[in-house]
Amino acid sequence: MSQVPASMYRISLNDPPDSSNLYLHRFASVRTLTESLVAPLGAEDQCVQSMPDASPAKWHLAHTTWFFETVVLMVHARGYEPYDPRYHYLFNSYYEALGPRHPRPQRGLLTRPTVQEVLAYRRHVDEAMERLFEQSGQAERLNFEALAELGLHHEQQHQELILTDIKHAFSCNPLLPTYVPAGPLAVKNAPPLGWADYAGGIVPTGHTGDGFAFDNEGPRHLVVLTPYRLASRLTTCGEYCDFIDDGGYRRPEFWLSDGWAMVQAQGWTAPLYWANDDGHWQIFTLNGTQPLKRDEPVVHVSFYEAAAYAAWAGKRLPTEFEWEAAAIDVPVAGNVLDPARPHPKPASADGKITQFYGDTWEWTRSSYDPYPGYKPLAGAVAEYNGKFMCGQMVLRGGSCVTPPDHIRPTYRNFFPPSARWQFSGIRLAEDA
Amino acid sequence: MSQVPASMYRISLNDPPDSSNLYLHRFASVRTLTESLVAPLGAEDQCVQSMPDASPAKWHLAHTTWFFETVVLMVHARGYEPYDPRYHYLFNSYYEALGPRHPRPQRGLLTRPTVQEVLAYRRHVDEAMERLFEQSGQAERLNFEALAELGLHHEQQHQELILTDIKHAFSCNPLLPTYVPAGPLAVKNAPPLGWADYAGGIVPTGHTGDGFAFDNEGPRHLVVLTPYRLASRLTTCGEYCDFIDDGGYRRPEFWLSDGWAMVQAQGWTAPLYWANDDGHWQIFTLNGTQPLKRDEPVVHVSFYEAAAYAAWAGKRLPTEFEWEAAAIDVPVAGNVLDPARPHPKPASADGKITQFYGDTWEWTRSSYDPYPGYKPLAGAVAEYNGKFMCGQMVLRGGSCVTPPDHIRPTYRNFFPPSARWQFSGIRLAEDA
Amino acid sequence: MSQVPASMYRISLNDPPDSSNLYLHRFASVRTLTESLVAPLGAEDQCVQSMPDASPAKWHLAHTTWFFETVVLMVHARGYEPYDPRYHYLFNSYYEALGPRHPRPQRGLLTRPTVQEVLAYRRHVDEAMERLFEQSGQAERLNFEALAELGLHHEQQHQELILTDIKHAFSCNPLLPTYVPAGPLAVKNAPPLGWADYAGGIVPTGHTGDGFAFDNEGPRHLVVLTPYRLASRLTTCGEYCDFIDDGGYRRPEFWLSDGWAMVQAQGWTAPLYWANDDGHWQIFTLNGTQPLKRDEPVVHVSFYEAAAYAAWAGKRLPTEFEWEAAAIDVPVAGNVLDPARPHPKPASADGKITQFYGDTWEWTRSSYDPYPGYKPLAGAVAEYNGKFMCGQMVLRGGSCVTPPDHIRPTYRNFFPPSARWQFSGIRLAEDA
Amino acid sequence: MSQVPASMYRISLNDPPDSSNLYLHRFASVRTLTESLVAPLGAEDQCVQSMPDASPAKWHLAHTTWFFETVVLMVHARGYEPYDPRYHYLFNSYYEALGPRHPRPQRGLLTRPTVQEVLAYRRHVDEAMERLFEQSGQAERLNFEALAELGLHHEQQHQELILTDIKHAFSCNPLLPTYVPAGPLAVKNAPPLGWADYAGGIVPTGHTGDGFAFDNEGPRHLVVLTPYRLASRLTTCGEYCDFIDDGGYRRPEFWLSDGWAMVQAQGWTAPLYWANDDGHWQIFTLNGTQPLKRDEPVVHVSFYEAAAYAAWAGKRLPTEFEWEAAAIDVPVAGNVLDPARPHPKPASADGKITQFYGDTWEWTRSSYDPYPGYKPLAGAVAEYNGKFMCGQMVLRGGSCVTPPDHIRPTYRNFFPPSARWQFSGIRLAEDA
Repeated sequence: MSQVPASMYRISLNDPPDSSNLYLHRFASVRTLTESLVAPLGAEDQCVQSMPDASPAKWHLAHTTWFFETVVLMVHARGYEPYDPRYHYLFNSYYEALGPRHPRPQRGLLTRPTVQEVLAYRRHVDEAMERLFEQSGQAERLNFEALAELGLHHEQQHQELILTDIKHAFSCNPLLPTYVPAGPLAVKNAPPLGWADYAGGIVPTGHTGDGFAFDNEGPRHLVVLTPYRLASRLTTCGEYCDFIDDGGYRRPEFWLSDGWAMVQAQGWTAPLYWANDDGHWQIFTLNGTQPLKRDEPVVHVSFYEAAAYAAWAGKRLPTEFEWEAAAIDVPVAGNVLDPARPHPKPASADGKITQFYGDTWEWTRSSYDPYPGYKPLAGAVAEYNGKFMCGQMVLRGGSCVTPPDHIRPTYRNFFPPSARWQFSGIRLAEDA
Repeated sequence: MSQVPASMYRISLNDPPDSSNLYLHRFASVRTLTESLVAPLGAEDQCVQSMPDASPAKWHLAHTTWFFETVVLMVHARGYEPYDPRYHYLFNSYYEALGPRHPRPQRGLLTRPTVQEVLAYRRHVDEAMERLFEQSGQAERLNFEALAELGLHHEQQHQELILTDIKHAFSCNPLLPTYVPAGPLAVKNAPPLGWADYAGGIVPTGHTGDGFAFDNEGPRHLVVLTPYRLASRLTTCGEYCDFIDDGGYRRPEFWLSDGWAMVQAQGWTAPLYWANDDGHWQIFTLNGTQPLKRDEPVVHVSFYEAAAYAAWAGKRLPTEFEWEAAAIDVPVAGNVLDPARPHPKPASADGKITQFYGDTWEWTRSSYDPYPGYKPLAGAVAEYNGKFMCGQMVLRGGSCVTPPDHIRPTYRNFFPPSARWQFSGIRLAEDA
Repeated sequence: MSQVPASMYRISLNDPPDSSNLYLHRFASVRTLTESLVAPLGAEDQCVQSMPDASPAKWHLAHTTWFFETVVLMVHARGYEPYDPRYHYLFNSYYEALGPRHPRPQRGLLTRPTVQEVLAYRRHVDEAMERLFEQSGQAERLNFEALAELGLHHEQQHQELILTDIKHAFSCNPLLPTYVPAGPLAVKNAPPLGWADYAGGIVPTGHTGDGFAFDNEGPRHLVVLTPYRLASRLTTCGEYCDFIDDGGYRRPEFWLSDGWAMVQAQGWTAPLYWANDDGHWQIFTLNGTQPLKRDEPVVHVSFYEAAAYAAWAGKRLPTEFEWEAAAIDVPVAGNVLDPARPHPKPASADGKITQFYGDTWEWTRSSYDPYPGYKPLAGAVAEYNGKFMCGQMVLRGGSCVTPPDHIRPTYRNFFPPSARWQFSGIRLAEDA
Repeated sequence: MSQVPASMYRISLNDPPDSSNLYLHRFASVRTLTESLVAPLGAEDQCVQSMPDASPAKWHLAHTTWFFETVVLMVHARGYEPYDPRYHYLFNSYYEALGPRHPRPQRGLLTRPTVQEVLAYRRHVDEAMERLFEQSGQAERLNFEALAELGLHHEQQHQELILTDIKHAFSCNPLLPTYVPAGPLAVKNAPPLGWADYAGGIVPTGHTGDGFAFDNEGPRHLVVLTPYRLASRLTTCGEYCDFIDDGGYRRPEFWLSDGWAMVQAQGWTAPLYWANDDGHWQIFTLNGTQPLKRDEPVVHVSFYEAAAYAAWAGKRLPTEFEWEAAAIDVPVAGNVLDPARPHPKPASADGKITQFYGDTWEWTRSSYDPYPGYKPLAGAVAEYNGKFMCGQMVLRGGSCVTPPDHIRPTYRNFFPPSARWQFSGIRLAEDA
């Protein structure tokens, strides 16, 4: 931590250095959005932790702040004193190199610091970041700009988690609270499922060029793809209902061995947040409980369920390389984070392959392995991605709770194959 | 529930019926005390559940209210409508006869209803109780008076739990919050340990006469006691330190088999809330962390630890019958609930046997079995005590967080032998 | 261990000292019976451990031998060398004072020593015991006679366990092996349930007089009993079926809280070893699977089930004191261990209260607490009984796998309330 | 199962059909070897199951027989009756399509059928297989030859497991039994670690040509490899000791996140079967416990440990594609199964890259994903490989307990990253 991690620069080396103003403008924007996401929540809502994988909203508010304090201010802001030295223990997530930390499953026990105290902590660090940028010359800024940039993207990841985690917490409350009331909504019909053909070949994969990317998106390298097809849109709730009605959760022939064991152990009979009310499916959403709409994309399925659905459909899931090769030229736009309606929407019927970005993360048939030549960043942020490269599956494309400027074709999200509380869905593939 | 449980009347049959005014005066007093106990807590503090055995303060506020609503108002207040029918599910503790209920380990997930909503629920039920008493004639009151009385004693039990539970929750927070700041305090010296002799004989045990008692305190019956001695005061922290220093937690010869297994599995090396700071014990209290005071009674020990300490000391624990026979003529007074200082104090040096009431609950060497002829109450409250009569040990005498008018010589508290988060301590005994 | 535990003498002090010949005659008889019990078992059968509470037959063979070696020979036989020093670790059961030991749940992993090697170990110790007795004068024998006697009763306890444990192991094998084939059997009808009245009063309890008893059967002391009645025979399978058919396992109102939790967690719907075959109950026995016979005593129920059955029947279980006061004058005889038919039989219709001894152990409504004035034995055998006096319930009367001369009115057996693999049944009681 | 799974033929389509004699010769050879592997074991040894991942030797004997019976005889041998219909339930391993089966963790409870009964079952099936081949014409044999061939390779996999599983079981016995006594042995010095360079490029991967292969070894396809280097031999015990001595098991910076969690949870401080005896490592082997030899390959490490060692060494593990491209032209020979000495040996100092085959399976940095275009076999054997393609890592090259003719360059073994009881070791790689 005492040295500038030079290797960070590859993540932004081609960028013209942000002027202070540009950075601080984006900094303010990201930090403000985070706080707006917790505005509908009371103090108790912000403290609750409904399972070890999730974190309290308040903890997200503090941890993202701790990241700037620890990675940028403590190292690069001359004379900076930690706001409260005990926060270093409380709000470290998983960085072994940064010392011992509060056990993850006990984050919900932190009734103190209160929400108000955490917001004061945020103010303190905001001001210190502003001072640091304003008081540093361009040469000095080179020492911490990449880390400060990483801090913004890090906070955006936690913006998404704030919503996935409170959704899970609310779903555990029999009162089924609403995050924001549903506005009037006309749900379109999804178009029929079509297929897009891709020729494959020897194609490049991984990040290149300007702009930020995480270390796990590179190095850019070649992969061999045989001809393949991708479904023109995400799998819908209606299609998934057909799988359920055909005994999908009772027939082992569709399932991976670990997946079938999970179905048995957990008693899964439908995606997370589905409840069968006398033969009619009700879906719990951040806008409250709603009747299932057959045209909406199915979401909150595990990799196991996605793979079983594909097997039932006689198809398969795409590899992350197939997905990227197809998505690389598609404009990065879609149903991404809108705090007023954080839910997937039916695909557009515009005749094109669609929904690459937003709506739901798409499980791929690719284990989360390092790319050839991958090396973790140096310094404390070495643990950011690399140490998780085992036992997880890659998801691509972002979801309806991913901040708009936080997604790109090379983005590799990853979760264990059993995870369901993320906005994860299904796009089918097949050999051409 | 549709009938008046006539058998309840034996708990107060000899009392002159409370006039409405008298009852309502006590009702207001108990209800107000409960709310004053949560006054030092923020909304987050009131929502947290630090282990399955503990409950959030907010849940205690609501559950005690649910008890009056369900057991009194729903049955006896003509035309009473439940405040929120969903609360019936949320705030039932363990009454199987009253239908399904929210799982106990998930009480901390109830961020809604909020503290304010729970307080509004309390107001609603308070007013309905007042109306019921004011509008009922004396004959009518006979139908519900015993249940309303039970509701008060039930709420007092939860007053104690509010403090034991928040103490546990705060202890899990590395910031170690203080419930109320410690005032200036001169800690006396405890007198030397003396012994009081009791002749034993064939003696009556169990509640009799006027005044409220729980069903498990009767029927009154005879027991045979051989001559015995009781320690003149509770075991002190200093004495317990000698046990620790003599290898108490490393020497299996002092321990019951289950206790030794617990020591190994949990890594116990001292009572709950003790922390060894470089050779000096620090004790976490509701007044914050304080250096161990050798003259204060040791508290937050399990039955296993109490029994091991007694074995080390060459003594034993008293049976609940020995305790009651000795305590029956001692005035019911002592260091009971004082919200400003909820902690045991050293014994007085007045030459008498002391500390029977208050300071710490005293583990007895008696399993919690039913008294001869015991039958549970009829109706919903049948589950109040009887179904727990297996696998628990009896404690006697109340503690420093027991409300003053909530303790009596025949009171039988009970907890599993491994429980440590109650204010439980040790009084030695021996055969005479 | 280096001193003679003088306190042991109270268990046999009033006996005329066994002559060597008398002791050795009984020693040979007990040791031979043990080996005859494993005769129907193959090497694999003798090695298996089907759950942590059970032990392999081979382990029982070795452990009982280790007991004599450790408690008698190592201390009292001049120049005795341990047969294999490693056995001290392998075959210690739970004596902390005797050093570390093989973990209980891993006894089934001991494929070595083989059955043949264990039998050789038995021969070696048998011969050393014979030499010790033959070469010691009467004065010398006083030093170890009580311990040698304890060894015999200890081995008899394990004879019973050999059968309960292999029954459990066989029940886990879908082939449902038979321990010994069933002979021809005419099952009598049980007589109608009658009641015997007892006046109670102030009565002595606990062992007295000549003959062996375990330390937990004393000291003899007085208890107060109010008038009561005991059922004239054990509860039958037919009566228990009525409980099941009336929803006994689905209605929480009959159950202790811990018992109901166990029913839910374990999915209990009938006693252990019952299987419902298309509406007809089949019972697995050591003589193979047989159709349920309504007149046979129900067996393999937990304390929770016994208590729930009693609550359903509007009765209760007797206390151990009530049982002993009733049984004290009944001849000690009944359906005890017959290796050819280890199963309970219907009661005799002789008009008397019956089945006190043999058939099934009878759960009492008494927690296993120490008697007033109880002190464990000195020396290594201090851990024999006392350290288990918490969390268990007392059973009385012996079963159909208890060796004939191993039961008496004051015998206190004890198991956790959830245990079902022992031959445990039900006798009802009520207040007179 | 009622149809011939035509797709099986691709596994042997290019082979000249075995004449009956040739097949039966190999059949007899494989079956005989299996039984010779259990010859050093007693009946108890063959029944024990030391953990859910392992199986009793007797179960392996029966399961491999069940495979021939179920997959070949029941479908293709006219009039064949199952030897014992209950064995279908007992000895199915994981084939959901073949009905319910005995729970895996309870295989050790099957004391019956006895070893003798299982051997009789083997004889019965052996004879039926012989009859089937002898009585079938070449055209008929086409219907089952591929399945019969699969049965041989299946049995060879279980030959390896018989040794890995009994090694684990013996290691749990404090007596540390020896499978076969160690003969006289001169351990060579391992040569210094060298590096072999590989150019990479676009290279084919996967099985082709004549000879048997499992379905997961295809389809053959192209992969892109950048230039790389492989270590000239396996990592030695001595090198691994240096990692341990440098704090390898105490420094999180070398570990994958899941691996570090495992180190903490399991208390790992060395490979499986290593014991530190007063500063000197002792290694438990099938030839008994032996002092660590620094020149022998390290074995019984998990993927996590292999990856951590590589990180500590500043290297990485090879991908399975890099391994295969390097091994494809190396003669398939090495220190494979020799029942008299089932242990890795030091590498030869012949100046070449060595130890590709035999000694230890080599963990690769490749998750066990399907190859492009992979489809499971049809019929019952569809579950053979495909359903495990999630959450496991690929190992290559066979070990010292792999039958000699059971390994080839395209063979993909797979185990969870935490598995240690297989003979798994480390070969380092790096980018060129």
